[in-house]
Amino acid sequence: MKQDATVLVPPQRGREVPVGEAKADRIALPAGWQDKIDPAVGAAALSIEAPSLEDNTDDLSRLRRELAKQNVNQLSAGLDALRQLPEGLRSANWQVTAFYDTVAEDGSSRLIGIAPGDRSGRLFGVAVDIGTTTVVVYLVDMRTAKVLDVASVYNAQIARGEDVISRIIYSLKGDNLREMQQLVISTINGPLADVLKRSKVQPEEVYQVMVAGNTTMSHLFLGISPKYVREQPYIPAVNHYPPVPARDLGIDVNPNALVITLPGVAAYVGGDITAGVLSSGMWKTDKLTMFIDVGTNGEIVLGNADWLITCACSAGPAFEGAGVQHGMRATRGAIEKVEIDRADLETRFHVIGDVAPLGICGSAMIDLLAEMFLSGVIDKGGRMNMNLGTPRIRQGDHGGEYVVAWSGETAEGHDIVITEVDVNNLMRTKAAIYAGFSVLLGSVGMSFSDIEQVLIGGGFGRYINVEKAIQIGLLPDLPWDIFHYLGNTSALGSYSCLVSREAKAVTEDVAGKMTYVELSADNRFMEEYISGLFLPHTNLEAFPSVAKLLSEREARG
Amino acid sequence: MKQDATVLVPPQRGREVPVGEAKADRIALPAGWQDKIDPAVGAAALSIEAPSLEDNTDDLSRLRRELAKQNVNQLSAGLDALRQLPEGLRSANWQVTAFYDTVAEDGSSRLIGIAPGDRSGRLFGVAVDIGTTTVVVYLVDMRTAKVLDVASVYNAQIARGEDVISRIIYSLKGDNLREMQQLVISTINGPLADVLKRSKVQPEEVYQVMVAGNTTMSHLFLGISPKYVREQPYIPAVNHYPPVPARDLGIDVNPNALVITLPGVAAYVGGDITAGVLSSGMWKTDKLTMFIDVGTNGEIVLGNADWLITCACSAGPAFEGAGVQHGMRATRGAIEKVEIDRADLETRFHVIGDVAPLGICGSAMIDLLAEMFLSGVIDKGGRMNMNLGTPRIRQGDHGGEYVVAWSGETAEGHDIVITEVDVNNLMRTKAAIYAGFSVLLGSVGMSFSDIEQVLIGGGFGRYINVEKAIQIGLLPDLPWDIFHYLGNTSALGSYSCLVSREAKAVTEDVAGKMTYVELSADNRFMEEYISGLFLPHTNLEAFPSVAKLLSEREARG
Repeated sequence: MKQDATVLVPPQRGREVPVGEAKADRIALPAGWQDKIDPAVGAAALSIEAPSLEDNTDDLSRLRRELAKQNVNQLSAGLDALRQLPEGLRSANWQVTAFYDTVAEDGSSRLIGIAPGDRSGRLFGVAVDIGTTTVVVYLVDMRTAKVLDVASVYNAQIARGEDVISRIIYSLKGDNLREMQQLVISTINGPLADVLKRSKVQPEEVYQVMVAGNTTMSHLFLGISPKYVREQPYIPAVNHYPPVPARDLGIDVNPNALVITLPGVAAYVGGDITAGVLSSGMWKTDKLTMFIDVGTNGEIVLGNADWLITCACSAGPAFEGAGVQHGMRATRGAIEKVEIDRADLETRFHVIGDVAPLGICGSAMIDLLAEMFLSGVIDKGGRMNMNLGTPRIRQGDHGGEYVVAWSGETAEGHDIVITEVDVNNLMRTKAAIYAGFSVLLGSVGMSFSDIEQVLIGGGFGRYINVEKAIQIGLLPDLPWDIFHYLGNTSALGSYSCLVSREAKAVTEDVAGKMTYVELSADNRFMEEYISGLFLPHTNLEAFPSVAKLLSEREARG
Repeated sequence: MKQDATVLVPPQRGREVPVGEAKADRIALPAGWQDKIDPAVGAAALSIEAPSLEDNTDDLSRLRRELAKQNVNQLSAGLDALRQLPEGLRSANWQVTAFYDTVAEDGSSRLIGIAPGDRSGRLFGVAVDIGTTTVVVYLVDMRTAKVLDVASVYNAQIARGEDVISRIIYSLKGDNLREMQQLVISTINGPLADVLKRSKVQPEEVYQVMVAGNTTMSHLFLGISPKYVREQPYIPAVNHYPPVPARDLGIDVNPNALVITLPGVAAYVGGDITAGVLSSGMWKTDKLTMFIDVGTNGEIVLGNADWLITCACSAGPAFEGAGVQHGMRATRGAIEKVEIDRADLETRFHVIGDVAPLGICGSAMIDLLAEMFLSGVIDKGGRMNMNLGTPRIRQGDHGGEYVVAWSGETAEGHDIVITEVDVNNLMRTKAAIYAGFSVLLGSVGMSFSDIEQVLIGGGFGRYINVEKAIQIGLLPDLPWDIFHYLGNTSALGSYSCLVSREAKAVTEDVAGKMTYVELSADNRFMEEYISGLFLPHTNLEAFPSVAKLLSEREARG
């Protein structure tokens, strides 16, 4: 389990925080795809015979004839591509590069456009992960499948709601659905313009866009109302989205490039999760695997090459900072690690950038919950012990709070605290996730001990300290070495589908194969959730390593 | 050969003439298609199971599931259709009619949209003939294939040029291509609105539009530059046009309905001719057939079920009135028949509507040419004999002219004349058409005597008096009973393709099968054309019936 220093948390309202970016050269295709690079888009440099009175074949047929020699068959062309041909072919003296895609199921090709001369070396694609909180864009050289650059920003829809539910509600009124679509599209266009500029790639040179997002994000992106995603029995308009030309959406790439939105499974298990399952490799392993994507929502998939079941546990974005008073994302100024001295209850923390702290990011929230629990600052119910004789524990405006950093040492001159309300929000989130694990296992008659690997994806997962996460009952008490963090599995899945037709086919297959378990209809979920509203859990026997720590503490105390 | 009283001639500039309309109940599907009604569009009334927590299938998949029970398979849906589903299905309590088309070659279906309740009886389509001069719109009930109404108007592009060449030249400058596209689309939308209103059909209830037009009209309609249609070696951008959603063109029907433009063969043999060949039935006959479409252009097809060759003879729109001083279309006030007394050279004419004449329409032009020739007013070279001692023959502003009607008897108080310039224009047109016949026959080593039937289509063909047309050398001197007038073969072909997938497939096949003969590259054409610049022809032996008349005249004279 890789431990990293930062956690992704949305900005405080009104505070603009630049978003950190992963390094492009550190992004690798998930295992198994490196030798299957075969994008559904291509470029062919052609030398077309000029027409004559003896050979008056039309422009498109001349192009088709040459492409067929390169095994590009059944080429069709829409109006925009056709409109380029008469002048485009002749001004290039019939020496052109044809760009085409092969997205249709029947294997036929579609002309995207032509460019003069041999431009076959300039074939680019873009993979997008539309997170509820963060949008990530990869610029990919489609010939080598190399990620040239990556950029990410907050989803501008955040201003209309922190989570999918509030955004759905917002989208129902007036022209708001359209506004939400425009917000996410302009969100994508921002980092897209940045990566294109930095890599000196023209927008017209991007010939395919692959998008992964949860069901609500995908609906809003395509301008389809997610109204019934929210209302019981939670039905998406569609799980298998149609490819759409970029021009119809306003994505600033080649207007005739197809934007492909990856298929989802259900209202709360979307294309980000099928992409995640793809990049996790769990769809082809014999090992019983638990995959968890802890982003703004919490989705879980259980299974292996033979079967896959999935659920969403309405975790809420607490670990991403929403509902946490001094929550922030993992950027310069964020407290990212915290220890509490068992004796004097003083804190030691580390701040990203080694500067005065601005707030607390997700990894530190897990640390704090675990440390406060183990040091007795909070009890197993999350209540603060006001009688420990330290000024760090005090009554705040909304009940008990623990001072993580004093005003004198903070950047903005006020105390940074974690409150009982924060603690309760974080406990609800972790309880929902753990309950999801339990119900999924129970639904197939299995238990935690059957799990052979736990794969963690999503923006937040990157920063989880497994030891601490087990101590608070967020993750099951299993050997640390079976936990693996996979990175942004949604973006990596989107990237895999962009560069490999087989990966895309596997994703479609996975989406069709996953069995969805609706937790809201499941009494076991509510029971498990309530049992999880303790630290680490009502059933301490399920957390032997934590029980051992607690009994050691008893013995010391 | 049906003889009719009117001829279609474009309006004089600045004169607005209402366009006559064929009666819908007189329009019948061409022979052979009545029992093959099978449109590529359908409606299915569905009772869809409402979703539940146990069955959380998405909206589109629920619809697909029900449609599959009615053998509508592989249904895809674009964004516009998808956007209707969430509210459309629920507000109709899951009782809806799904409208779909099956245009794709692989037999898959595409959702056009849904409507509440059982609306399967409301399935309409539109067939359009985009003529250079006139645009005709049929409104069709797709269940019965009955034409409900028909309307026609002048192509508003006329204001930018009478013929295709002048329109191509106009389209090359600035934003004129777009303007030309808008002109023809607004032209179509006019009669379309009329027929819809009269039949109480909503635009949304029209689910497919089939369009036939010549290559230039088709390119302009789709906004594709026809620049190289005009320049040697005369290459269209495309002969097989892609289907386009009505919304992308601005045709006022269901925005998601496909507009299908029928395929052409070459720069001057377009979809109007493949549609014409389809409706002529010559593609399936053993008889050696000559098909001629005399509209604004003159296209000829020769062949039978085994082979088809075709050419365009740049006839020009003289018989439609362009380049004829007092030319007009066949409406109230048009002189439509003329006889010249062999003794005193006085005229007898018939005017449409039995009113004072306004001008001369095409049928009367043929009559006049033949009568002037046989009465000696003009010689075989088209020169007027100024020495016949009648005031009807006189010097006009531009040379000799013959007075058809005196100012005292005309509607606008001026003489109606036919001039030597008019005569020359008409002779050039008839010479080009006859030269086309000769070259096509020669290219397969055949002669006129091999022809078993002559089929005449197009707006103008309707009004041709075969006897007179032979006398001037426009049509070959063959027995009158092998000539048949078929009506607007382009519109009828479009209509056939709208209601029958097999007809559409035959049209595609015909387009691929026709061999195009480029006359401009053919020395024989120029020779034949020059030989045709006489009345009836330099080679009088080819016109024995006319030779007989002339020798009888000699004998009398």
